[in-house]
Amino acid sequence: MPGQATGMELAGNQPLVEQASALGRFLTPQSIAIVGASADAGTIRGRLLDYLIQRDYAGAIYLVSPSQPEIRGRKTYPTLASIDAPIDLVLIATRADATLSIVEECARVGARFAICYSSGFAEAGEEGEAEQRRLGEVARNSGLRICGPNTAGFFNARDAIPATFARNIDGRRAPIASGRQGPGTVSIVAQSGGLVFAMSDRCLDEHGLGINFAISTGNEADLGTLDFVEHLVGDEGTKAILLLVEALKDVDRLPAIAQRALIAGKPIIVSKFGRTEAGSRAINSHAGRLTGSSAAYDAAFARHGLLATDDENEMADLAAAFSLFPLPSGNRVAIMTTSGGAGVWMADACEAAGLEVPILDDATQAALAKYVPSYGATHNPVDLTAQVTVNPLGGVTESPLVATLAALHDSDSVDAVILIANMSDGDVLAREQQGLSALAARLRKPVLLYSHAPASPKSLELAQQIGLSVFASTRRVARTLGAMVCYARSRAEMTADPAPAQPLAAQEIAALADGLVEYEAKALLARHGLPGGDEVLARSAAEAVIAAREIGAPVALKIQSAAIQHKTEVGGVALGLEGEDAVRGAYEKMMATVGEKRPDAAIDGILVQKMLKPGTEFALGIVRDPDFGPLMMVGLGGIFIEILKDVTVEPLPVSRDKAMAMLRRLKAWPILDGARGRAPLDVDALAGAMEQLSRLVEGSGDAVREIDLNPVFVYPRGEGIAIADALVVGRNEPHAAGDHA
Amino acid sequence: MPGQATGMELAGNQPLVEQASALGRFLTPQSIAIVGASADAGTIRGRLLDYLIQRDYAGAIYLVSPSQPEIRGRKTYPTLASIDAPIDLVLIATRADATLSIVEECARVGARFAICYSSGFAEAGEEGEAEQRRLGEVARNSGLRICGPNTAGFFNARDAIPATFARNIDGRRAPIASGRQGPGTVSIVAQSGGLVFAMSDRCLDEHGLGINFAISTGNEADLGTLDFVEHLVGDEGTKAILLLVEALKDVDRLPAIAQRALIAGKPIIVSKFGRTEAGSRAINSHAGRLTGSSAAYDAAFARHGLLATDDENEMADLAAAFSLFPLPSGNRVAIMTTSGGAGVWMADACEAAGLEVPILDDATQAALAKYVPSYGATHNPVDLTAQVTVNPLGGVTESPLVATLAALHDSDSVDAVILIANMSDGDVLAREQQGLSALAARLRKPVLLYSHAPASPKSLELAQQIGLSVFASTRRVARTLGAMVCYARSRAEMTADPAPAQPLAAQEIAALADGLVEYEAKALLARHGLPGGDEVLARSAAEAVIAAREIGAPVALKIQSAAIQHKTEVGGVALGLEGEDAVRGAYEKMMATVGEKRPDAAIDGILVQKMLKPGTEFALGIVRDPDFGPLMMVGLGGIFIEILKDVTVEPLPVSRDKAMAMLRRLKAWPILDGARGRAPLDVDALAGAMEQLSRLVEGSGDAVREIDLNPVFVYPRGEGIAIADALVVGRNEPHAAGDHA
Repeated sequence: MPGQATGMELAGNQPLVEQASALGRFLTPQSIAIVGASADAGTIRGRLLDYLIQRDYAGAIYLVSPSQPEIRGRKTYPTLASIDAPIDLVLIATRADATLSIVEECARVGARFAICYSSGFAEAGEEGEAEQRRLGEVARNSGLRICGPNTAGFFNARDAIPATFARNIDGRRAPIASGRQGPGTVSIVAQSGGLVFAMSDRCLDEHGLGINFAISTGNEADLGTLDFVEHLVGDEGTKAILLLVEALKDVDRLPAIAQRALIAGKPIIVSKFGRTEAGSRAINSHAGRLTGSSAAYDAAFARHGLLATDDENEMADLAAAFSLFPLPSGNRVAIMTTSGGAGVWMADACEAAGLEVPILDDATQAALAKYVPSYGATHNPVDLTAQVTVNPLGGVTESPLVATLAALHDSDSVDAVILIANMSDGDVLAREQQGLSALAARLRKPVLLYSHAPASPKSLELAQQIGLSVFASTRRVARTLGAMVCYARSRAEMTADPAPAQPLAAQEIAALADGLVEYEAKALLARHGLPGGDEVLARSAAEAVIAAREIGAPVALKIQSAAIQHKTEVGGVALGLEGEDAVRGAYEKMMATVGEKRPDAAIDGILVQKMLKPGTEFALGIVRDPDFGPLMMVGLGGIFIEILKDVTVEPLPVSRDKAMAMLRRLKAWPILDGARGRAPLDVDALAGAMEQLSRLVEGSGDAVREIDLNPVFVYPRGEGIAIADALVVGRNEPHAAGDHA
Repeated sequence: MPGQATGMELAGNQPLVEQASALGRFLTPQSIAIVGASADAGTIRGRLLDYLIQRDYAGAIYLVSPSQPEIRGRKTYPTLASIDAPIDLVLIATRADATLSIVEECARVGARFAICYSSGFAEAGEEGEAEQRRLGEVARNSGLRICGPNTAGFFNARDAIPATFARNIDGRRAPIASGRQGPGTVSIVAQSGGLVFAMSDRCLDEHGLGINFAISTGNEADLGTLDFVEHLVGDEGTKAILLLVEALKDVDRLPAIAQRALIAGKPIIVSKFGRTEAGSRAINSHAGRLTGSSAAYDAAFARHGLLATDDENEMADLAAAFSLFPLPSGNRVAIMTTSGGAGVWMADACEAAGLEVPILDDATQAALAKYVPSYGATHNPVDLTAQVTVNPLGGVTESPLVATLAALHDSDSVDAVILIANMSDGDVLAREQQGLSALAARLRKPVLLYSHAPASPKSLELAQQIGLSVFASTRRVARTLGAMVCYARSRAEMTADPAPAQPLAAQEIAALADGLVEYEAKALLARHGLPGGDEVLARSAAEAVIAAREIGAPVALKIQSAAIQHKTEVGGVALGLEGEDAVRGAYEKMMATVGEKRPDAAIDGILVQKMLKPGTEFALGIVRDPDFGPLMMVGLGGIFIEILKDVTVEPLPVSRDKAMAMLRRLKAWPILDGARGRAPLDVDALAGAMEQLSRLVEGSGDAVREIDLNPVFVYPRGEGIAIADALVVGRNEPHAAGDHA
């Protein structure tokens, strides 16, 4: 049936435009049927119709009611089947127990989409969950796509199409900023109906920001959050996407969608709920959903360039900033203020947010000097003082505020500008409107306004007319800019061509499937550019003696058997052996002891290793999250990992730069860097090994499930690293647990 | 001269009421002279007069102008001296270079107070700094007290007395919330004039909160921030104090003032600026002030129960919360919501802020069940759902929202309540106004309102009429409650009777003045209840041998000399000695080597110690901050302190409970607590030693300047601790540096 799409098709490899258009018809239906329509605008079902009438919906409206001959002067139909016309979207406002049969009827009559508003499904217990599953099955078995149940529907602001009962949309209420309301470029997707429209109001209230689409996905029996995000990434009118998420289904689709969003330059700003025990409990009871690991979500968001925050103000701020400003090309901020104290506060907040507030170059300071009085400052923060904005210094005919701001905007040593003034009435912005509008029209970098006394509504409105916006607190200004800098950086990094991966050969993958013993794992790593050691597998005492002679004393012996995880426990490790007798004796004793303790285990032999000189112990590894793919983990060994959890984790690929950044984030970084007169360690060698490891795993599909290099000895700078023990686990092997010395 | 007070008197031991009244006359003057008065309300000097007229100032106004015979129809005086009446307060609005001579005239004519508004002093360079010093000298040499220079003055809202040119006070401007403006219970002190009035506007704008006093202290040539804080602590109308600080002078007065504020239950909410390089740079250029160490301020604020924050919104929120609500008696929060999603978000935020969102007890849940529909939740968050607030469940005749809220408020298992509803119009609060007002009138714990869609102005106003307030974001609600819980806890702890201190005897103090060598330091500590070791000072090889025999092998020898800090460097340490010969040999060799290397050093003898069994190494010490007094420091030894800076620092006194809390805050706490199968360590013994150390130092005035116990070996639970090395530094000794093993 044309125009119909199943979940599989949406998820897969169809060209973007077609994917976008599939849900496009949902969000911009040509015809809408309401099942359970009512003339009473005080009820949920009544509001659905009321809002459509309020907004002058231009498509066909079919009201289904078996009992009422007409509703608000409009003809009704007893059933969906009695409507003799194609139906794009059916709004189902009946009770939970009547929903399934209507959905089935929707499928029978060939309706394209349905929204099930009623609650009482998975969130209400097992029976509701079963009923919800049945809704999903109807969708999978027919062409019908379903939004909900337990949803507030959506509002298409672009085309003024409300398919929701949310009171925020009611034109009869005095909306917070009614005069400014109009479609905009931000789209919002939330699982909670209350929050999606709250966030839309917030964008409007705080930044005069109109939305494009606001979509509540509810319990997601069929259509899920990522279906809508995918559509919005391809939607021309959407410039930024706000996402409020309790849990994502089909999370394996996230990487491709996120990558497309990065390339398109559409930031996805996300809040993930249910991070705590109480939060998860609440989600389960209001949406019947389990929340999953917040840490895994955080890692995935970071990996794929989504901007995560847990603050609704910050979401609105970011939506505004990304809608209004070009991305900054660095983190150098110029602060211009009419209040010295407010400038200090902002400087502190900027540095706390990872921004730099550098002393301005001489040329820029010289350009400013003309406008700034002696009791002000030109270095940065630039303190213009309140006085000279009204009474310019002698010889100045233009507006000192606009001239100074423009000079900062135009300076090559500045990546973003913050203007602080007292906007508690509209005077400043009214006076400077023309000059600021001219600057806003040629903006090359972010210019954020802040008022240390709360800005008046008039100021907020003027700022928006000018094409800028007033941000509501010092911290919010700084965090917004900090997030923009972060996004710009990770976008540049993630959309750059990755370093070529160095995949495993087919025979290596085959060997991996059988399980690798330590000596095999190390050999494999050495073949792929990781440091290898002096070591030989001996199959007899004589071989061990010869190997020890070649390697040079002292040596260590280690039993090699795929069946033995904990070598020390079975007497399978001997250290610091010197001389022929010691090696021979240790070999024979080890074979005997291990044979006694583990008569079942097939022994490959005994590995003769050069005793490594002691170095600072690190642990380095790869783990594969079932949802989010391979992650690299690095940390200082021993107690630092065990107790202090001082590790950094990043998704692959890990470039050398990213590896260095990971190491710098460790609390133990000063140890690597040579704090307090210690010798700095060979971090270059460690970062290089991390890059090689990343290439190896990335290039090999899902062949490798886990790698654990522990300990890795890191030596002083220039002396490299040594992998003392290695575990490489293939796709199908069971997880390795515990120590493996 | 009556009514006059010098800085010394104010700082010292006068009874509170007199101190309060001294500055009371400044803030509520009976007569005001304006030097440099002007009829032009567009200028700074003109505004001073204009605002006084606007507010119908009831005292006498004397306008000083040598050139104008009258100003705005009022008689003028050519000089201050020509005014034949007592002058409480002189407002000096002349240029910087004319200020000093007028201040001198103020002193001559016996004016009590003067405000110097002009900038161009310490912030403008050396010359200005010298001029500012001269202003201070005039104050110190006369009875005149000076506010400023470089200040915006103050506004006494209680008595409607403006002594400021700040435009926020101008009755002609449309203030943000003019309808609601009126005096309130919050007082604000800031060094920055821009910020003091910005903060006052913010309290009004966000919470309809009126202020009592807003005071800008400027460059503080004479009167400083703490003078005003001290006055406000004693001021009946002030319930909470907001403080915006760049640097505090006379910081030694803080403890007493803060303690009085704690006892009075007046929270001091403080932001400290100039935390970063850029921030400090800006302060220096706008106020000619150095900022001091932020860490020392943070420690002092924490020590003395001030609430520190770096966010202006949070300051306003805390001002509102402390003005409106009783203190919570614990951290258990009930969340009641009409939107499931918003409840989840809030639960997450509360737990992140250190609050608990417990499952409610059965009785409370049973009381709620009547109002909450099946698709809602009673456990906590309590999800009432939007629907039943309008259409209550069958049998319910009262308001479900109010009844549920009251049940939560009245529950003994709840310490604070959060109500979340959509207040984007005024409907909810208008409908529930009566019920909520009745609850607000009998409030026993905090009840904070939050609207997930931004609250409308009408809702904000209704909330304030009801006696509650709407907080603007999820995070702000949670942080406000978190800070209240913190404050309540530290107030209870800090105003409780401290454990009796155990002071040093006079002869010990005398000995301390001469400097203690290790063995003396350890003996002193042992006398005061800290663990002592088996050790004997030997003055000959024979004595050493006898001592070693008594103590039992193995022993360590350590040279004892006040002149030798680094024993190992001079061959002054020998470890692990067993047998008579070894001890004798080591003694003789040590005496010879040390004698050669340090022929100048007077040797007390050699300490023979039992070799301590190895334990987990800790460092424990006392340092005395010149401004903030004695602080106790504890941390795991070695790399944890050196590199990871994993220490906690707390001001004395340190009770056993506080000591345990300090240890729990260490990142290394799991090591103490027995993580991962390790034996738990004897933290009780360690905490006991910390308490003893605190008593010893607290009880001895400033006799002890520094104590450094490092390493302290902590053994498994029940096995105690051992002090391996100790340094005790008296008041007058130079600081000890480096190692002292």
